Amino acid sequence: VEPYKLWYWPSIQGRGEFVRLTLEGAGIPYVDCARDQGADALMQDMKRRAPFEPFAPPYLDVGTMVLAQVGHILTWLADAHGLAPKDEATLFWTIQLQLTVTDFVAEVHDTHHPVATMDYYDDQKPEAARYATGFRAQRMPKFLGYFDRAATALDGDFVAGAQWSPIDTSLFQVIEGLRYAFPKRMSAIESDYPALIALHDRVAELPGIAAYLKSDRRIPFNEDGIFRHYPELDAV
Amino acid sequence: VEPYKLWYWPSIQGRGEFVRLTLEGAGIPYVDCARDQGADALMQDMKRRAPFEPFAPPYLDVGTMVLAQVGHILTWLADAHGLAPKDEATLFWTIQLQLTVTDFVAEVHDTHHPVATMDYYDDQKPEAARYATGFRAQRMPKFLGYFDRAATALDGDFVAGAQWSPIDTSLFQVIEGLRYAFPKRMSAIESDYPALIALHDRVAELPGIAAYLKSDRRIPFNEDGIFRHYPELDAV
Repeated sequence: VEPYKLWYWPSIQGRGEFVRLTLEGAGIPYVDCARDQGADALMQDMKRRAPFEPFAPPYLDVGTMVLAQVGHILTWLADAHGLAPKDEATLFWTIQLQLTVTDFVAEVHDTHHPVATMDYYDDQKPEAARYATGFRAQRMPKFLGYFDRAATALDGDFVAGAQWSPIDTSLFQVIEGLRYAFPKRMSAIESDYPALIALHDRVAELPGIAAYLKSDRRIPFNEDGIFRHYPELDAV
Repeated sequence: VEPYKLWYWPSIQGRGEFVRLTLEGAGIPYVDCARDQGADALMQDMKRRAPFEPFAPPYLDVGTMVLAQVGHILTWLADAHGLAPKDEATLFWTIQLQLTVTDFVAEVHDTHHPVATMDYYDDQKPEAARYATGFRAQRMPKFLGYFDRAATALDGDFVAGAQWSPIDTSLFQVIEGLRYAFPKRMSAIESDYPALIALHDRVAELPGIAAYLKSDRRIPFNEDGIFRHYPELDAV
């Protein structure tokens, strides 16, 4: 079997990281194509797939088809590789949670790019400061509280029970990213979400994840990605 | 069989409209609960569903479970009611397109609420003007061009072929909404997307949709929803 081809920007974690984490956690063979071939190759590959091209990376070529949109890719991977909850109601609940992670990640992006996606952060700093204030005060507690309740809804070490699934690696990444981007705010509030933090810690100890985090395949957080540390956007 | 229970804000089309359109197009029995019982009942119903409560409306109680997130609800409805493309690659492509509609709708929302979701539009008018400028110039053509190519990718009257599916009613709603919110801009550019406009027109003629649009179940667009007409945000 050919390894899957993951296409995503080669210099950031970004949205692609949610896919990488599930692939790594499950030990699924894949090639992170643009890390070898560069961002130009990614843009060329996308065009080549017209009229079925993805709207944006990440996308995963699984041989028989190309999947785009993080939640969609992860749902397919979970089903294809035995990670999906067996109970239908639980499965569908985890898919909904994953799409809620997608919504939250879009808001994280907007903390540094609230008014002009195509412009630099430096061109929208006052607007970003205003967005980030509401994000820290209202949106972070709302989403983290929601995910914390999700982490305790069912028995077992992971959201869906005894077996981890993509929502667990995704919530791990949310915590990692928020700690990087908003360290002061996270220090102040993360003890309010003990189940979510405990879940994060258990994901970090999964053998595939632990090995990945120590490898150079894990790109460090940086100020080109989704989770960016701009000290002026952070506060207790 | 009990009709499904749809829960969404009773006074706006909003994100719930994408679900209503598929239900109406397919003639699936449902009760739009909060239109009878009010917004307070919606908020109480959501809480009642803890710890599996949706993060936000719309959600659909189908008896055996509760589904939230528009793309997720529509994928389930299509599968359960014979609307889903039979070919797996086509099915998965339409799911990806639907999630891209979700992304676009979030950007439409941000045209009037770019920096503070909890505040009024009146408190963020300069920021909205800046966001809307980039939205009209860059994002509208990018998304509409993408969806126009999608509308021509396969033979047949609809995105997936001869049978309409939720992505068709969703793209119909995108065009309806943009025409309401940005009439000047849409008049200037919509002829660039003939396949998408033709698709919109065919959806409008589906018997279930045509009847719905004439009924009082179709809430008029207004300035509390996602697609809002603020003349100062529109331009050629």
